[in-house]
Parts: sequence; structure tokens; C-alpha cells
Amino acid sequence: MASSLLSTPSRTLAPAPGPPGLRGRAPAQAHLPRGALALLPRRSRALRVRASVAIEKETPESEPPPTFLREDGRGAGSGSVRERFEAMIRRVQGEVCAALEEADGSGARFVEDVWSRPGGGGGISRVLQDGRVFEKAGVNVSVVYGVMPPDAYRAAKGEAGKNGAAADGQKAGPVPFFAAGISSVLHPKNPFAPTLHFNYRYFETDAPKDVPGAPRQWWFGGGTDLTPSYIIEEDVKHFHSVQKQACDKFDPSFHPRFKKWCDDYFYIKHRNERRGLGGIFFDDLNDYDQEMLLNFATECADSVLPAYIPIIERRKDTPFNEEHKAWQQLRRGRYVEFNLVYDRGTTFGLKTGGRIESILVSLPLTARWEYDHKPEEGTEEWKLLDACINPKDWI
Amino acid sequence: MASSLLSTPSRTLAPAPGPPGLRGRAPAQAHLPRGALALLPRRSRALRVRASVAIEKETPESEPPPTFLREDGRGAGSGSVRERFEAMIRRVQGEVCAALEEADGSGARFVEDVWSRPGGGGGISRVLQDGRVFEKAGVNVSVVYGVMPPDAYRAAKGEAGKNGAAADGQKAGPVPFFAAGISSVLHPKNPFAPTLHFNYRYFETDAPKDVPGAPRQWWFGGGTDLTPSYIIEEDVKHFHSVQKQACDKFDPSFHPRFKKWCDDYFYIKHRNERRGLGGIFFDDLNDYDQEMLLNFATECADSVLPAYIPIIERRKDTPFNEEHKAWQQLRRGRYVEFNLVYDRGTTFGLKTGGRIESILVSLPLTARWEYDHKPEEGTEEWKLLDACINPKDWI
Repeated sequence: MASSLLSTPSRTLAPAPGPPGLRGRAPAQAHLPRGALALLPRRSRALRVRASVAIEKETPESEPPPTFLREDGRGAGSGSVRERFEAMIRRVQGEVCAALEEADGSGARFVEDVWSRPGGGGGISRVLQDGRVFEKAGVNVSVVYGVMPPDAYRAAKGEAGKNGAAADGQKAGPVPFFAAGISSVLHPKNPFAPTLHFNYRYFETDAPKDVPGAPRQWWFGGGTDLTPSYIIEEDVKHFHSVQKQACDKFDPSFHPRFKKWCDDYFYIKHRNERRGLGGIFFDDLNDYDQEMLLNFATECADSVLPAYIPIIERRKDTPFNEEHKAWQQLRRGRYVEFNLVYDRGTTFGLKTGGRIESILVSLPLTARWEYDHKPEEGTEEWKLLDACINPKDWI
Repeated sequence: MASSLLSTPSRTLAPAPGPPGLRGRAPAQAHLPRGALALLPRRSRALRVRASVAIEKETPESEPPPTFLREDGRGAGSGSVRERFEAMIRRVQGEVCAALEEADGSGARFVEDVWSRPGGGGGISRVLQDGRVFEKAGVNVSVVYGVMPPDAYRAAKGEAGKNGAAADGQKAGPVPFFAAGISSVLHPKNPFAPTLHFNYRYFETDAPKDVPGAPRQWWFGGGTDLTPSYIIEEDVKHFHSVQKQACDKFDPSFHPRFKKWCDDYFYIKHRNERRGLGGIFFDDLNDYDQEMLLNFATECADSVLPAYIPIIERRKDTPFNEEHKAWQQLRRGRYVEFNLVYDRGTTFGLKTGGRIESILVSLPLTARWEYDHKPEEGTEEWKLLDACINPKDWI
């Protein structure tokens, strides 16, 4: 999910022009707004491919609007979950960026790109690059209105395979959906200061247009994970403790379940190792009270700064040598491998023409690949690799 | 195809152990030896997935054997195409490595990894890293014996969709195949010295085991392409001229056709740009005399050094500054994007458990991603990008 919400729509309605041999191929997923995949519940994804409706072109904006919600959803929706979720992610974006600028301490500021769509929806991408502490930090929010194929909607509800007919025998039409999220990847310069990723998202379907009264669906997803180059136990324990505290406020099953889900998701299969030391991750969450899950997602997003800033403050000026930096660069290479090969938001965004710079802001400024590099057993580098291969309970 | 033949088999028969949630999933393509995809003709690939036969484990060897061909194919096959192709790629590997070591001039030497399989087949990976001139240079050969599903065989012959029955009504069995190739990626340090990739391969099926007398199929594939960070017209013209000369010795249609094929193949769709300035590329070539195509592949492979070494000699000591290096690093980032996202050999190898270090030796030692980097119009960086977006006729 690293880059899911970093993806903003492409600048044109048409598929990107390809080389002559490739021209004329329809984009695989044109029905959904570009970059929207990771906002969809996983069960919907398998059936996404049947669609062919083009999407609205987005326009750059000079100022962020008060809301990206459609007008018709505002009045009635006062206090609605979508409204409160948008407000939450925009507040968190502001707070995280302010805290990172302060931690960077160089006067470097986030650069902002804002875009919107005529019919509603849009996003704010913020990037700080080459600061004193941060090599590259991206914090993006987006709000997407789209239409999902009826098959995908039925699959999401667990009714797949009913061959076009709604549960009541009516032919179902396309299902409008709403999705909003915040996504961020923070790469510090110091090899002892870990990379952080977090992403929280909310997804909602409207009733299908021609099946009035059909139930509205909603899901929450997201996570926060830590990717150090060196294990400093105090830091890793602190990070996981904050995640656990956030989870434990809501349900005792959350932390063990979402910790394992995180270890499973950020897995670089071809290396048989994780990209880092995990955290929490969840998707398609709707089997709890909606208010409770909104509060849970808010709690998780609000836990990012207390989980991360103390670590950055402790490690941003730790002395290091060229070997430490080279090892960090090798681990950055693994981050690139995960994001380009496995991350669902990134791979979908790349293949369907999302806004590339927003998607790939998750990549580090620099990375390194050495042939057959193997840390010597017992070294600090080996210990990190071992923990990426064999996930541990840190607390 | 960048890494197709850089891929050697994994060390075990079992799928790589995954995280708990992923364990027990069968590898998608277990029927074929790992890394063999790019050796297969493209038409066979769509149907590859139905197989489930495990492959032989390979063993590291201390010395390259005189041949990787099976015993039973040697005596009768004296002077056979497979024998001559293996001899050619191994000769070229030796010549290219020797020439690169000489051009590097630092005394740095290629490190060699040799492996073989009990039933025949194997490979030699050679890597030179952090030399004076070369940041990373890999030159690999491999010889693979495998068994392809009957569906894939029929698809390759243009008989797909016949639902398990051979053309004569008999049920066809698995089809043994042979594939051999050389693959190489050379990344110099100097930003004015271009990266080179080449890959030549030969593919052959045996008669299906239970359909005696069925025709044997064969194909040639490969190409050579140049990826500079700056356009030095003299160099680019020289490179393309040598490719054209090699092609023109065989058929006047070859160069225009294979030049365009190359521009189409090395296309980074999400960027709408090619990774470099092209060269030649062809696949599934069997509609010419077999001897002629063997000679053509040999001529192409023999053209690598005359096409590349003069450029390296001219540019290896060109003075450069930090900006030149940063631009080269950004272009290296594009190389990583192409190889990890699009290259068929790499993506297949990664997802099916190929020998990772051999596959990823095609990646540069270092790469860079800046948010929203746009070269100023008219600059040398802009000219390179323009030529990657709009392929040119250089000669």
C-alpha cells in the first residue's frame, strides 16, 4: 500500500500514448479513477478488469479547497463518516508536515501540489526533498469519486458468480463509490534513523443507481510500518509499543492480528525477507461498529508522530561512516524492489497511468544494488537482515 | 529481456518459504526451470501456467564443464545448432569479459559463478563490480533443459485452443525443450559512457514424448541496446551503424524491423519514454533458414565489442561534474523501473524464485529518484529525454 494514495489521476482522459506497437490498447482498469485500486477493498479487485468507462480529467489548483467532497454530499452529510474522515486526514497531513519540518530544522519546507476534478474529489501532494534530516518525505491525501462495475460490487459483498443478476433478480448497474486516504513515506538521511510509511483510507459505496434501497457498503484500511537499516531495540520497541497502545484502546485482538498482517504484506517474496520490521496493517475492515473503526483509524493516524518523532530526534545526528551509509543504500534498494514489484497501489498506479511523480515519491532519493552482498554473520547488518527474514515480537 | 539469462535456478526444489499467510502456495510456473521464461518464444508464454512438475536442483561447480549439453545430445549432435550455439555464447562471454577487463584497466577481474544440473544444463555468471571504468558489469550464459506443457507447445505452433488433442487426434504429452543464451548488462561509471545491454538466445523443442514424428520447433531471439545519459551523436551513430551493418549482411528488412522492435520493447509505459536510445531486438525468429539465423545471431553477438568498446575508450575519462552524475543516477532509476516493472525475464524470474543475484545483476550499483525532476528545455539532459520519448533514426 506504500504509494496507494500518492497516486493522483493522469492529466488526460486518453491512455498515455505508447510506442506504435502498443498504441490502441485500452488501459486495463479504465473504469476506476487512476490510482484508486488501493482504496478499494481487496475482494473487489479481482473483478475490476471488465470496465471501460473513461474518467474525468483533473485540474491543478493553486489553493486547497475547504473540502473535496461533492456539494450534494455536504449538507445532508454534515457529520457523515466521509466528511469526518476527510477532515481527519487533512488535519493529520498538516500536523505531520509541520512536525517533520520542525524535526528537519533546516528551514526546508514541503512543496505542495493540489488537484481537483470538476465533479468532486481531488488531492494534495506534499513533498520535502533534500532537507537536513530528511532525504525525501512525501505526505499525500486524496479523495476519489468513481464508479465500480456491478461484478466488483457483488464480489465485495460476497455475491460473486451470480452472473449479472442482483440478489433480488434485478440487473444491477454500475456502483458509485467514494474513497479517501492519507499516504506517506519518510526517508531520513541518517542510516540510524528509520524510514516510516503510513497509509489510512476509507471506502464507501453508494447504493447502485438502478437498485434503490440496496445496502451501502464501507470499509477501512491502512497501517504504519518501520524500515530501519540498523536495529536499535529501544527505537523498535517504542515504535511497536505505540502501535499496540493504539490498537489496545479498541480491541485486544487488533494488535496481534494487524501486526502479523503487516509482516505478511510487506514481504519481498523473491528475497524471502520483509522490507523492514513491520508495524500494523489491515484492509477491508468492516466487521466492527463504523464509529469505532473511524475512531480507530484516527487513533492510528494520530499515533504516527508519537511513534516516529522521538526516534528521529534521537537518531538524526548519530555519527555514521561510509559503510553504514552503503548498507542503508542497499536496504533502500530493497524498498524499491518491494514498491515496484509487489506494492499493489504502486504497481496498479504505474500500469494504469496514474500521476507518476506522486506514485513514485515513495521511492528513496538514492538506492544501491551490489552483486551477492551478504552481511557477515553476527554483524549489525546481519542482525537486521535476520529480523527481516524472521519477524520478531518486539514487545 | 535484460535479465533473462542472468537468471539461474533456485537452490532448492521447494518453493521459497514465505510468510505464514503465503505458505503453501504453489509457484505459478513450476513446470519450467526457473528463469527459463525469456528463453521461450512469446507465443508459448500465455499457456505456461498450467504446469506443476518440479525441476531438478542445480549444484554449484568449481570449474565450467566443456559443455552443458546432455551426453545423449552430443555424439549425434556433433555440429548441431544447439552445440554450435552453446560454443558461440561461451566464446563470446569469454571475449566480452576479456575486452571489458582490458578497457577497465584497473586489474579488476570478473568473478565467476558456475552451476549445473545433474540431467544436463547449467550456467556461468560473471560479474565485475566497482572497477575503474565499470560500476557493474554482468555477462552470463545459461543452458536450460525443461519440459513445456502440451498447450504451450501447440500455442507455439499456432494450434492453441484444440483442447488437449494433438492435430492428429492423439492426446499430446509434455514437450521437452532446450534453451541457451547469453545476457549482459554493462554499467560504466562515467556519465558520458553509456550503459549497454545485449542478450542472444536459441530455443528448441524435442518431438513430444508420446507423439513420435511430430515436428521439432526452434526459434532465435535477442538484441543489443544502448542507454546513454547524454547524447554524443558520434557514439550513438557508431552504435546504430554497427547494428545495421550486422543486420544488412543478412536481410535488408532486418534493421528497420528490429530497430523498431527494440524501440517498442524497451518502453517504460508509465513514463511514456524508452529507457535509452535503442538498438535492435527480435524474438520468435524462425521464418528464415536456420543456418542463416544462427549466423545472424553470431554476427550480432560478435558486433557487441566493435559497437561498444570504441565508445567506452572515448568516454571513460571524460571530465564530469556532480550535476552530470546526478542526471546519470536519475536515468539509472529509469533503468531500474524498466527492469523491475516491465522486463519479462526479470519479472518472471523474481516471481518464480530464480537466482536473485543473477537476475538483479542487471540493476545498476546506484540509482536516484527526485520528485518531479524536469530538465530545462534545450539542455543536454532535455535532449536525451526527448530522444527517449521520440525515438529517432540515428543513421
